[in-house]
Amino acid sequence: MNRHLLSAADLDRDTATLILDTARGMAAAMTGREVRKLPTLRGRTVVNLFYEDSTRTRVSFEAAAKRLSADVVTFSAKGSSVSKGESLKDTALTLQAMGADAVVVRHSASGAPHRLTEWLDGSVVNAGDGTHEHPTQALLDAYTIRERMGRLEGLRVAIVGDVLHSRVARSNVHLLTTFGADVTLVAPPTLLPVGVTDWPVDVSYDLDGVLPKVDVVMMLRVQRERMNDSFFPSAREYSRRYGLDTARMARLPGEAIVMHPGPMIRGMEIAAEVADSARSVIVDQVANGVLVRMAVLYLLLSGEKGSMA
Amino acid sequence: MNRHLLSAADLDRDTATLILDTARGMAAAMTGREVRKLPTLRGRTVVNLFYEDSTRTRVSFEAAAKRLSADVVTFSAKGSSVSKGESLKDTALTLQAMGADAVVVRHSASGAPHRLTEWLDGSVVNAGDGTHEHPTQALLDAYTIRERMGRLEGLRVAIVGDVLHSRVARSNVHLLTTFGADVTLVAPPTLLPVGVTDWPVDVSYDLDGVLPKVDVVMMLRVQRERMNDSFFPSAREYSRRYGLDTARMARLPGEAIVMHPGPMIRGMEIAAEVADSARSVIVDQVANGVLVRMAVLYLLLSGEKGSMA
Amino acid sequence: MNRHLLSAADLDRDTATLILDTARGMAAAMTGREVRKLPTLRGRTVVNLFYEDSTRTRVSFEAAAKRLSADVVTFSAKGSSVSKGESLKDTALTLQAMGADAVVVRHSASGAPHRLTEWLDGSVVNAGDGTHEHPTQALLDAYTIRERMGRLEGLRVAIVGDVLHSRVARSNVHLLTTFGADVTLVAPPTLLPVGVTDWPVDVSYDLDGVLPKVDVVMMLRVQRERMNDSFFPSAREYSRRYGLDTARMARLPGEAIVMHPGPMIRGMEIAAEVADSARSVIVDQVANGVLVRMAVLYLLLSGEKGSMA
Repeated sequence: MNRHLLSAADLDRDTATLILDTARGMAAAMTGREVRKLPTLRGRTVVNLFYEDSTRTRVSFEAAAKRLSADVVTFSAKGSSVSKGESLKDTALTLQAMGADAVVVRHSASGAPHRLTEWLDGSVVNAGDGTHEHPTQALLDAYTIRERMGRLEGLRVAIVGDVLHSRVARSNVHLLTTFGADVTLVAPPTLLPVGVTDWPVDVSYDLDGVLPKVDVVMMLRVQRERMNDSFFPSAREYSRRYGLDTARMARLPGEAIVMHPGPMIRGMEIAAEVADSARSVIVDQVANGVLVRMAVLYLLLSGEKGSMA
Repeated sequence: MNRHLLSAADLDRDTATLILDTARGMAAAMTGREVRKLPTLRGRTVVNLFYEDSTRTRVSFEAAAKRLSADVVTFSAKGSSVSKGESLKDTALTLQAMGADAVVVRHSASGAPHRLTEWLDGSVVNAGDGTHEHPTQALLDAYTIRERMGRLEGLRVAIVGDVLHSRVARSNVHLLTTFGADVTLVAPPTLLPVGVTDWPVDVSYDLDGVLPKVDVVMMLRVQRERMNDSFFPSAREYSRRYGLDTARMARLPGEAIVMHPGPMIRGMEIAAEVADSARSVIVDQVANGVLVRMAVLYLLLSGEKGSMA
Repeated sequence: MNRHLLSAADLDRDTATLILDTARGMAAAMTGREVRKLPTLRGRTVVNLFYEDSTRTRVSFEAAAKRLSADVVTFSAKGSSVSKGESLKDTALTLQAMGADAVVVRHSASGAPHRLTEWLDGSVVNAGDGTHEHPTQALLDAYTIRERMGRLEGLRVAIVGDVLHSRVARSNVHLLTTFGADVTLVAPPTLLPVGVTDWPVDVSYDLDGVLPKVDVVMMLRVQRERMNDSFFPSAREYSRRYGLDTARMARLPGEAIVMHPGPMIRGMEIAAEVADSARSVIVDQVANGVLVRMAVLYLLLSGEKGSMA
């Protein structure tokens, strides 16, 4: 890994493993400390540059940075110079000049984080760009699976729902296959990307058929605003065919777990009973998100510049 | 007091006194320090979860937490996953998983803070819920009265204005009567809650008649947006009958003080001359707010978990 | 200088020099430090009180305060008690009571920062008020020129564009002439203030004629929303006559530099090639902004109260 984290596709298995192991080290380092805070990044400035709202992700990065004693500055696009016509480049040069050591960026345009690296000496962390990638989500998912199942290699993972629009799905496909897991995408044909046949995954339209054969089922977020599109007759129809309810959950093998990146709409893509069941690791995902982001910021920012691994 | 602060009604006199005494200790601990900051809560994370805007209250809690060296993360509902359909429960589980030691919550729904306690291991502090309670406001009011008058027991306090919609009034009635003060509510019949006759207070519609007999007059905030309702003919009429102007202030006994929770609309519920007079302790209320919130966070978060008193 | 920074017009040459030299000292103090943070203002609280959006300026002050280890609280007017009808005075008294050591204020009304000083014991720093002043912008501009050119006295500076509405222009005229620079304002007659003939500057309508004779050309921000006014036929016409493109830049003397306070609209008031050229010090301006604001906060807040120089 170089000095940025732009996509899960860039991570080889060694680097990804290093991140997960470092996250584990973060958990250990904070256990039993009276002051749950590490001095590692004192004096470093992490900028949260959010062009799209995402309180969950922003707060997770903010908590991670603060636990490493970094200063955090939030630069949200609304009401900022962006709305006065400033280009991404000039915003980057501004943050650079203000001394940002890392810029965590969420943007509606795929590729925006990559463009930022042209203008920033500091590290860029992709916190979600368009329909492209959301690599720390994939890392926290992998961490969560590994903690629960003991391994990633050879595991069978179903990713279910609106794959077409999901950066979470893309990042997970990259990272899980890098770790040697077997991934099956389950979605209606209209919500699968063109060219999915070239991906290193299986594809199915039949959730009920897939469930008995997986170790992990990862539900994707459904964007209600898309439910009026031609993709589906209705939200109810989506829920009926691709929602995970208790009856469906019963089809899972004994130890299989249920994941969701949140925020979830209970009753839509996942039933409340499923989200709260013993199989659900949804809350672990959130907790592990802070650890994984601590690991990423630590590896990018500590030590010599530009040498994460 | 248990490990949450949900309502003034839960506080017995000993616990409430402990909070006020601790706030006093905070003031003393910071006096004369070159660095006006205590290391007490270093490594703890306080989340400000605000579903309603309230810059004053948010900033007061933020200042209190930072003076105790805690990290503060603001999670405002606008633009957050809440607007994407996430339930209060899932937001709670998310904050919990991110390691929130305390969640300070402001919500338009009465009872929301109480519900949060079902899902959070950390402490919940009610920063105002619907028309229910705003306990730290009552505590800072009690602190302010005690500092100025030397005691609370036996004092005569008039609470004036829109009692019906006021959580500040409810919390003050609970706490002041717990401390043995005599409370009179002064409001037009349409702005008194049903069942007020069961409250341990006197009720009057006649502000001029009450003023000569009180030690403290506590004006409530008037919500202009309600002035178009059937409650009143007009803002001017309200001001004429229930506003505190200099003529009315002159009816107060010698040492009586004037309070207002802010933000106030000068000329509406209180005249500018009254707000700025020597009787006014409105600015003290704000200053004491930080001290009382420091005390609450300290008592909830330091020492062993769940043992505030 | 007294304990506030309200306008560049208040600064004599010694005080302004002290600020620039202190900023230089800040740069030196942070060079080579492993932890790029000074403990100087630990325990002090800086409030960012922004009635107008300005992410750049707010973040710059926030970064400056945090590098001096101060706590920073942002109090933005939107959604605050301001929108509930609270007066500037009561907001000031509130911040005062909460223990603000310095209030950095941005306001659409000229003179608002000055009014704040009536109610605050702490320091007030003007971060831009109406069309009046933006003194830290002028200080960072002076710092940037001095760093690059070695001096300010005797330098010829052109300030180009919408002078009428520009607080940046006003502050720069004050500060640059205090430092003994020769200032020429270049603007169409409709965008020059009434009374400009009394200012200690030259005035020209002819950018091409001025450029060969200056050491510094400072472009002002163009506010697109004003382009529909009677001031100009069109944005294109403005750009043609007062925009700085490469052809125009070629008219500058050998060492002359190009400045812009940002955010800039590339292609409107300045061509992209110019903004990115070796003559451009636009990025330095941003970096120096943090240093100058550190210097201002340090001089105002450290040492005994009220004795900046």
